[in-house]
Formats: sequence, C-alpha cells, structure tokens
Amino acid sequence: MVLAGGVGSRFWPVSTPSRPKQILPLASDRPLIADTIERIRPLIPLDRVRVLTGEPYVEPIGRAADDLDESHFLVEPHARGTAPVLLWAAHHLVKADPDAIMVSLHADHVIQPDAAFRELVAAAALAADTHDRLFTIGVRPTRAETGYGYIRKGPALDRSGAHAVAAFIEKPDRDTARSYLESGDYLWNSGIFVWRAVRLLDEVLAVAPELAGLLPLLDAGDVKEYFAVAPTLSIDHAVLERSQRVGVMDATFDWDDVGTWDAVARSRPTDAAGNVVQGVAELVESSGCVVWNEADEPVVVFGAEDLVVVRVQSVTLVLPRQRAADLKTLLDALPAGVREVDG
Amino acid sequence: MVLAGGVGSRFWPVSTPSRPKQILPLASDRPLIADTIERIRPLIPLDRVRVLTGEPYVEPIGRAADDLDESHFLVEPHARGTAPVLLWAAHHLVKADPDAIMVSLHADHVIQPDAAFRELVAAAALAADTHDRLFTIGVRPTRAETGYGYIRKGPALDRSGAHAVAAFIEKPDRDTARSYLESGDYLWNSGIFVWRAVRLLDEVLAVAPELAGLLPLLDAGDVKEYFAVAPTLSIDHAVLERSQRVGVMDATFDWDDVGTWDAVARSRPTDAAGNVVQGVAELVESSGCVVWNEADEPVVVFGAEDLVVVRVQSVTLVLPRQRAADLKTLLDALPAGVREVDG
Repeated sequence: MVLAGGVGSRFWPVSTPSRPKQILPLASDRPLIADTIERIRPLIPLDRVRVLTGEPYVEPIGRAADDLDESHFLVEPHARGTAPVLLWAAHHLVKADPDAIMVSLHADHVIQPDAAFRELVAAAALAADTHDRLFTIGVRPTRAETGYGYIRKGPALDRSGAHAVAAFIEKPDRDTARSYLESGDYLWNSGIFVWRAVRLLDEVLAVAPELAGLLPLLDAGDVKEYFAVAPTLSIDHAVLERSQRVGVMDATFDWDDVGTWDAVARSRPTDAAGNVVQGVAELVESSGCVVWNEADEPVVVFGAEDLVVVRVQSVTLVLPRQRAADLKTLLDALPAGVREVDG
Repeated sequence: MVLAGGVGSRFWPVSTPSRPKQILPLASDRPLIADTIERIRPLIPLDRVRVLTGEPYVEPIGRAADDLDESHFLVEPHARGTAPVLLWAAHHLVKADPDAIMVSLHADHVIQPDAAFRELVAAAALAADTHDRLFTIGVRPTRAETGYGYIRKGPALDRSGAHAVAAFIEKPDRDTARSYLESGDYLWNSGIFVWRAVRLLDEVLAVAPELAGLLPLLDAGDVKEYFAVAPTLSIDHAVLERSQRVGVMDATFDWDDVGTWDAVARSRPTDAAGNVVQGVAELVESSGCVVWNEADEPVVVFGAEDLVVVRVQSVTLVLPRQRAADLKTLLDALPAGVREVDG
C-alpha cells in the first residue's frame, strides 16, 4: 500500500494539485513515487502494489510511474487522514487473502540503500507474522531532528531487530531531540508500517470505536459512504498509541521524509559548495542553496548561504532554508491569486 | 554639465546598454536623470544644461528626460573617464563665454532637499568666482561609509562654507571611516564640481601635461581625434589632487550616489519593515529587502532579511544586500550568455 494522497504544500509553488509532491523528482532524477515503487518491487511484485490516493492525483501519478494502470489504484473519495484509508486498505486485503501481510509505504520517502530497506521490510513481515503485532519501522536518528515523531524502544522481541514500543513521542524541542539522539533508545517514527491486515481490523475493533463502528459500511462495500462519514484521524493517534499489540523494527538505513525544501538539500546530489541545482542557474560564491528553476531564463544567486530559490512559470519564491518548514505560514499569508498557481 | 555616461553595471540585470542606470527610477518614480535636471532647473535653465554621454545612451536618455533635445547633448566618441570629458566641456563653455561658471553634476545622484542643494551650488558658484578655485561639493558624513572617497577640510576661505582642501583620501577601511565620521573634519567627496571653466583649462596647463598636450586638438575642433588619443583618467587624479587651487564646499544635504542595490534601500520609500518593493511582490515576515520585479508574475519573499531579489524578463538575481557592492565580481564570473541580458 503506497500512501500517495495530498499535494505537499510545503513544496509550493512547484507542488500543485495537478502536480503533487509525490510525482516531483525531489530526491533523484525520477519522481518520488517511481523511486518508491522500484525500491520495493524486488520484494513485492507490481501486481500486489496498490496506490492509495485521491481522484485528482490518479492521472498525474499514472504519468509519473508509467508501469501503473487503473488496477493499481485505490481511490479515496475523501482525504480523511491515514486511519480511515489504511483501515479500508486492510479490509480490502483481508477479503482477497485473510492471511495477507500488509506493508504501508509513503510515496514520498527517500531511503538508501534500497537493499537494506527491503531486508528490513522482509524481517518486519516475518516479525509481524510471528508476534502478530502492528509494526512500525523506526529509524535510528542521525541528527537532533525536531520535525519528526520519535519512538522509545521497549524490550527486544527476538533477535531480528523487533522491539516492543515503550512510548510514541510527538515532535520534540531541540534539547529533547539532542538527548534522544545521544541516548540510543529512541527511533524516528518513519510512518512505514508492516502488519497482518486482519490484525489491524482486530485492533480497530479493540481500541478505536470511532472507526470500528464504520466497518459494516466496508463489509457492505459502501466505500463512498464510509469515507463520507469517517472522522479525520491519523493511524498513530487512532490505533497505534492506544494498542497493546504494537512493535517497532530498529532500522539503520538512511531515511528522509523529504518534507521541506531543506530536506531536498539533504537528499539530492550537491555541488562542491553544497548547493542543489535543478534547471538553469548560476551560483557564484554561494553555498548550501537549493535552486529549483523550471523556467528557461536563468536564476543567478550571488554571495548567498542556505537560501531556497524556486522559480516556476508563474511565480518566484525566495526564502532561507531554515524557514522551509514554515511554508504553510507563508501560504496562509498569501492572497489567493498568488497562492493558487499552477505551473 | 550632467555626466551621464556608463551603464551602471552594479544594477545588472536591470541596467543594460539600452537602459542605463541613469534612466532607471532607482530613487523615486522618475528616472534618476530627470530628477537631476529638475532639481537644478530653477537655478540653471534648461538651455544652459548639457548632458555628457555616449552615443548609445542619447536615445534612452532622451526618452527618460523628454524636455531634452539634440541641442542638449555633448556626445563623447569614447568613454575616457571624467578628466577628458570635463576638459572638453570646459573648453566648449569657454568658447561660448570666457567668464562662464561650470557646474558638473552626476545624472545618478540622489539629493534632498532640492532647495538646499541649489543654495549650496549658488554659494559654490560665488566662491568659485571670488576665490578662483576648483570647488568640489563635500557632504558631511552621516555614517561610516567605506564606499566613498573623503576630503579633509583645510582652513575656511570665507563664511559661505568654502574651505581649502587639506587632502583627498581614497575609500577608507571601516575603522578609518568611523574615525572620519567622529572627527568632523572630513567630508564625502561627492564628485559634484563648480569652477570657472577657464580655471580648469589653466589648471590642466599647470598640473596635467598628459591632457594639456591635447588642448590644440580641441582648439582645432577635432573632438574625435581628441577622444581617440586621450588617456583614461579621472578628474580627481589628473587635476584636483595635483592642483594648489582647489576648494571644498561644506554641505549638509542628504546625498547618495545610488551606487548599488543597497543604496536603493536607502533612497526609495520603504514599507514598515524597511522593504523596498518595485513591481508585483509579496513579502511575508521579511525585512530590509529590495525586491525589483519587472515581470507580471509575482516574486514572493518569505522570512528573509536584507536580501536583494531582482527579476527582469530574462533573468532572476538573488543576493544579500551586503554583497551588492561586489556585483562586478559576479558579472566577471558569469558566462556571457547569462550576463548579456537585455530586458
């Protein structure tokens, strides 16, 4: 299950409804979603891959990952957060195979190396089958990141890297993040999940009454009504933080959720001065900049450090990298006529 | 005499050969040269104004200051610095009137208030006539500017503000500039001159043999040959720094040579956060920025301080204000295809 809803508004003005973040080449020369599918494909063949997204994104995603056809899409009538859509996906899967293991990926994560990731997912699938818990992939922190949620590891469940979960922790402040990094007991919550599909249904029945009450709609095949009445909830809040049957896999691969322009500077290849450049640009005496230019006319950056400069046909955006996480603040402040660009 | 040669390359990419700096509205809503001519006009009527410039700039300047016609231009066949062109201008003026007082202005200076400036020029004209010295206008420093030359005042010549000159000083370093600001004995060398035209000819004969030898070409009316063989020299180096007959007028008006994008931030009206905006732009949580956008598409700046963002049709430039004085370094580094924009 590849979660590919949402427009990725922190990549405005490049991300737009007709060109959502997951089809942008933010981490390599290929769209993020194409990288995601290719990465898992040796482990999970394409005919078992489903892309969970909204109707507006089916066509652009189909263009970006051209091995996909209609059969690969599960189209959510409304975006209701991860809980309703993953419950629907699990229900769908159980109908096809009551013993199915479900792997839930995000279309827009950057992970390296691919082989280490597949090995970890395979180990998680085995652990999910053996221990019958809801597993999340936890990534060992490499910096005091304040933009991610964390998981405190509980006791090891076996020797595969599978642990119980002691606690889920929301985005910490800088000092707390630093102490987490030093302690070694904390993992980044990647939002990548592995579980027996039927176990998710059981846990929803056990701990999430606001969703459990909607299962008869899915049983009846009324997906439209299910999404119409479903509350907007994340799977973390609705199920994982409440359940006694969760686990975390301790992973060491490089992982980034490419949440901001700042993350692009970490993910894409840089020049000798640490600049990431896409399109026609000249950077002189500049370092640590991200320049994304979709126009034919050059962007010139001189004497700058850690700036983001984005040019699409209809707008030019300049901001410091350190403000990239606050892009939604900017969007709220912009007049609609400026905000609603498209290419 | 209004000096209006040169393209003003530190305003690249807005300044170009077909649109030199002096016709840009960098300090108000009017072209700099139109402001300059209007400022002096109550003192020096238009029929006594001459614009000294190169052939390529005659047409754009004529468009920018539409009261000018062909009779107002003295066209230099080659740009050779201020010494050859001002000597030519003085020679031209002496032929028309041996007693003429010559006032030499720059097309691209910002001065306020206009009336105080005219009073000072009138006082300088009187002092130039009385003392028969080459007067430069010295402006009392208001900051420790390292981008200007300075003049150390000598003894007062009378009570009009006229002083002898103790020394001309090249651009100082930061600490020296600060000591000049504090001492009160130093003035910025504005490059605005007032003298009897014939006195300049006499001083050239006295101290500048490399120019004196060319006077017969001007006597013979061979302006083309004069400029063809003239050395490139500034009037400061060739005459003023060598002459014993110089003076300085002590002035207190606001003066700026609008040399850089940084100076634009000082000269044009700002918003409450100190931003200067020309064209379509949205600045959010930003201060001290200069945004100059000549395209119809908006420029958006978020969370930035003291940045310059310039958008013309064919290029976008981003730099910190503090690097604005180094723009020629950038131009040297750019490939010709990027540098040679035109609009």
